[in-house]
Amino acid sequence: MTRYTAPLKDMQFLLHDVLSVGSSDIPGYADLDEAFTGAVLEEAGKLAHDVLEPLNGPGDRSGCVLENGVVRTPAGFKAAFDQLRAGGWTALDCDPDYGGQGLPYLMGTAVGEILVSANMALNMYQGLTHGAYSAIHTHGTPDQKAMYLPKMVTCAWTGTMNLTEPHCGTDLGLMRTRAEPQADGSYKITGTKIFISAGEHDMADNIIHLVLAKAPGGGEGTKGISLFIVPKFLVHADGSLGARNAVAVGKIETKMGIHANATCVMNFDGATGWLLGDLHKGMRAMFTMMNEARLGVGLQGYAVAEAAYQNALSYARDRLQGRDVTGAKNPSGPADPLIVHPDIRRNLMDQKSFVEGARALTFWAASMIDRTHRLGDGDADGLVSLMIPVIKGFQTDKGFEMAVQAQQIWGGHGYIEDNGVSQFVRDARIAQIYEGANGVQALDLVGRKLAQDGGKHVMAFFDMVKAEIKSHDGAARMAPFTEPLKGASKQLQAAVMYFMNTGLKNPNAALAGSYDFMHLMGHVCLGLMWTRMASAAYQALDQGRGDAVFLQSKIATGHYYMSRQLPACAMHLARIESGSEPVMALAAEAF
Amino acid sequence: MTRYTAPLKDMQFLLHDVLSVGSSDIPGYADLDEAFTGAVLEEAGKLAHDVLEPLNGPGDRSGCVLENGVVRTPAGFKAAFDQLRAGGWTALDCDPDYGGQGLPYLMGTAVGEILVSANMALNMYQGLTHGAYSAIHTHGTPDQKAMYLPKMVTCAWTGTMNLTEPHCGTDLGLMRTRAEPQADGSYKITGTKIFISAGEHDMADNIIHLVLAKAPGGGEGTKGISLFIVPKFLVHADGSLGARNAVAVGKIETKMGIHANATCVMNFDGATGWLLGDLHKGMRAMFTMMNEARLGVGLQGYAVAEAAYQNALSYARDRLQGRDVTGAKNPSGPADPLIVHPDIRRNLMDQKSFVEGARALTFWAASMIDRTHRLGDGDADGLVSLMIPVIKGFQTDKGFEMAVQAQQIWGGHGYIEDNGVSQFVRDARIAQIYEGANGVQALDLVGRKLAQDGGKHVMAFFDMVKAEIKSHDGAARMAPFTEPLKGASKQLQAAVMYFMNTGLKNPNAALAGSYDFMHLMGHVCLGLMWTRMASAAYQALDQGRGDAVFLQSKIATGHYYMSRQLPACAMHLARIESGSEPVMALAAEAF
Repeated sequence: MTRYTAPLKDMQFLLHDVLSVGSSDIPGYADLDEAFTGAVLEEAGKLAHDVLEPLNGPGDRSGCVLENGVVRTPAGFKAAFDQLRAGGWTALDCDPDYGGQGLPYLMGTAVGEILVSANMALNMYQGLTHGAYSAIHTHGTPDQKAMYLPKMVTCAWTGTMNLTEPHCGTDLGLMRTRAEPQADGSYKITGTKIFISAGEHDMADNIIHLVLAKAPGGGEGTKGISLFIVPKFLVHADGSLGARNAVAVGKIETKMGIHANATCVMNFDGATGWLLGDLHKGMRAMFTMMNEARLGVGLQGYAVAEAAYQNALSYARDRLQGRDVTGAKNPSGPADPLIVHPDIRRNLMDQKSFVEGARALTFWAASMIDRTHRLGDGDADGLVSLMIPVIKGFQTDKGFEMAVQAQQIWGGHGYIEDNGVSQFVRDARIAQIYEGANGVQALDLVGRKLAQDGGKHVMAFFDMVKAEIKSHDGAARMAPFTEPLKGASKQLQAAVMYFMNTGLKNPNAALAGSYDFMHLMGHVCLGLMWTRMASAAYQALDQGRGDAVFLQSKIATGHYYMSRQLPACAMHLARIESGSEPVMALAAEAF
Repeated sequence: MTRYTAPLKDMQFLLHDVLSVGSSDIPGYADLDEAFTGAVLEEAGKLAHDVLEPLNGPGDRSGCVLENGVVRTPAGFKAAFDQLRAGGWTALDCDPDYGGQGLPYLMGTAVGEILVSANMALNMYQGLTHGAYSAIHTHGTPDQKAMYLPKMVTCAWTGTMNLTEPHCGTDLGLMRTRAEPQADGSYKITGTKIFISAGEHDMADNIIHLVLAKAPGGGEGTKGISLFIVPKFLVHADGSLGARNAVAVGKIETKMGIHANATCVMNFDGATGWLLGDLHKGMRAMFTMMNEARLGVGLQGYAVAEAAYQNALSYARDRLQGRDVTGAKNPSGPADPLIVHPDIRRNLMDQKSFVEGARALTFWAASMIDRTHRLGDGDADGLVSLMIPVIKGFQTDKGFEMAVQAQQIWGGHGYIEDNGVSQFVRDARIAQIYEGANGVQALDLVGRKLAQDGGKHVMAFFDMVKAEIKSHDGAARMAPFTEPLKGASKQLQAAVMYFMNTGLKNPNAALAGSYDFMHLMGHVCLGLMWTRMASAAYQALDQGRGDAVFLQSKIATGHYYMSRQLPACAMHLARIESGSEPVMALAAEAF
């Protein structure tokens, strides 16, 4: 059986020592004192440990079942979801005007990690609702907001996002779902959507579908697309539920993982919908929430890896196998625990140094989103928009890889489904695919974000790295961080230069290197975060604050990342600089 | 639905252009003319395409079922296994004295790849039988051989290997299964074994279990272990079946993959067994077959990746999504096929260049095993023993990674079980774990094999690489191969030097770098193979032999490997040279 304990100490360290929320100029941050954040995170940890995690394995094994148009979620899910609602966990960073608690997005992110680590499939019902809430909150009319938001804040009603169709995923311009305007201002929506997470289930009174469809007069491709609100049950003006709408689940998919989340084919047969935002501006409306949605998936990448790591660590401590080559560590036992072996250490340190680095990057990005929303800071928005594809693509790739490594520590027992660690691998896999497959993230990064606003944001990124390095000038103890970071950052700059010099003549040269660039930048980001964390840990040690063993481990884990992971940067640069020729040499028929 | 076509052209190229079997001094190789090997491989390909592959997905979905002590394999498996038997495929490289066809191991390997690609789970029933056959063939008495081998050559009876127990996998010294000698020379075997592939099933009249157990008087640890033959049904002197033995399946495991292969808990309750080989020399007897068994698993790594690649390629050609940035390639269609996009190319070329390189390495190693067995060549044995952990560990790691990349090309559709590509990922995963987890392979490589016979074999390996490079001196067209190979080989030598210089003082320094060393050496091996393949392709082109498009693609694919994959070597060296300190810094309690 698997176990999970929320990493409260690490989260508190990030919030207070690294991000220094107490002294931040972001409105609302000053209220986040240590006692408050500690209490919130501890409560979330209890819910995760006592309620959500125990349902994770059983939910995977039973999955969702579709019978007569009704989707049954696994036993216990509805009761657990009720506890999430009752505790106010779904409303944490929502607008107080609609019943939210108004906490910073950063706090929602920290709590979100805990909920995802404990039970990714269950938390998706909430996560998607939050995405739909944000879309309506940003683009809805006052009436729409009043009608839907209070119910969605509490997850009394859940939400979905309907983009994909059988023949189009990434390329939404090929969309066939149609919206026909009606005399009363509503639309009739007709078409089939697939891969709709939480499209139908038994945990909420209503489901608010946000649906992309083509309305007449919008032209070809993505330009003709609009966004519509299509509730499962129509809602009367007084908020009570009316007739069932003409939208129904056609089937639920049998998937490699996230079995407890219902992935639905949704059929819209002239369903009644209302325009959300401007006509023919649906893509823009949908993608307003893209940064948050993709950050949420990047979070899933490391949150599942954290859960997998905890279970790999406990196995490595308990399982007796072989002897330490430098001398028995458990001489009275039949063998030493796995954790004495250097290659098991290597594996565990890979996981630990990734997860902690990714957590720091994700929390930092969440604070940039708060800065954007609460201070209207366009520079913060530009910087975080640049980094979102890195956070989504790099963190989900590495998160999956680390879940696989965690499973490896379990040996053959990790391959047996009853033991639960294979679920982390199967669940983590989806995060590399949905919300824009990671190849599309790389394309977004290199094809759009690098050059955005004249390259202003990537320059800001390099300035941030340089400023960090400079701030430690002359501090010998920081050299094991700043030197590798400097080297990696130069390699990243060389890659940018390579794209600039070749890209105009040969766009394929940049695109052929896009995936490596995403990973190279991911390592620089985590190198930056480890530099900040090490500096904060040294500072706390200097001042005699905090848990010295924790702080020393933090520094040692950072050393590991810098010396063992940053060498990947040179490899990625070499691959980028080999250009498009090796990649594009074969004719399509010659494969 | 998935599809599979045997890569006959590539196999023929390896056998005849690269390995030049026709002019080899290995007995039996001269008979392998192009027409003969072509006919054998084509027939195997037909069986794979028509019979085995169509059962692969259904077998995964239905799995094996245990009812009242009987294991039912998936529908169609028995009939397909009968076809394997009837066609003589199980007897290909077996001893003619016992009904085998006496072909070289190399041919068994080539055919084996085809069978594994088509249906890994089904082929395991045969593969394990072959392992047990080899153990009895090598260590059995004349009577034992006469009694068991003819039935095992045809797979009328199948075989198993019983090593693992609940509390011991890698560390077999902890074994608890006991063997009590009886007056008639037999033993009573008592204990529980787990993870026994094909431990019980409905496809054969008898199952011959080879069981490791401790007999009295052998001392502690692995020294007391002996190997026993424990048939499911006792066999009369005339070969007819007698009473049911006291061995029974306790449960079958629910696993992440290879669902169609029954993984059993086997209970031995005073089962009758006969000693195989010498008393208390069971470990040695079991591991005589280790090179072949591990080569077989290394083969699974790339064979499953080959199947995954074929299905990724067909999807990339068929699925229309987005436009080529350099201009539409399918202007009359709604979008271009995925294969126009550089990042899709990068992904496909990763797969193609790995699979073809690994196939070359595996075939080469199989020829070294033939050289060992048919010429008694100790140097060949030493060299292949050195490389077996690389082939097993590197190829199964990369094979899994490539199956994941193949799945990625399918996007969300790759996560849906009905489409079949996720099965490749789930099946490939086990190859990293069983037959010695990959961390154990790295330990075997660095902790044992490097220093074996005074380092003679690793020196022979470097000499082989140097000789290959030297043979292309002055050939400008070969420089894109020999230059990177030279660099990578130097990095590998530097790693060996690092281990030599630090290992005596600090054994952890070598062990902390063992996993990276295994991967570094894997890249050098594939770089060597690509150099040989490119040279053979150029030669064939010069002489106007063969299919020019195929040969040009071969060279271009090699270019890709050298420029895009070999840069990993410097990363692995840097990680190795960072030493044990970052790996071992944390106290076990500080994780």
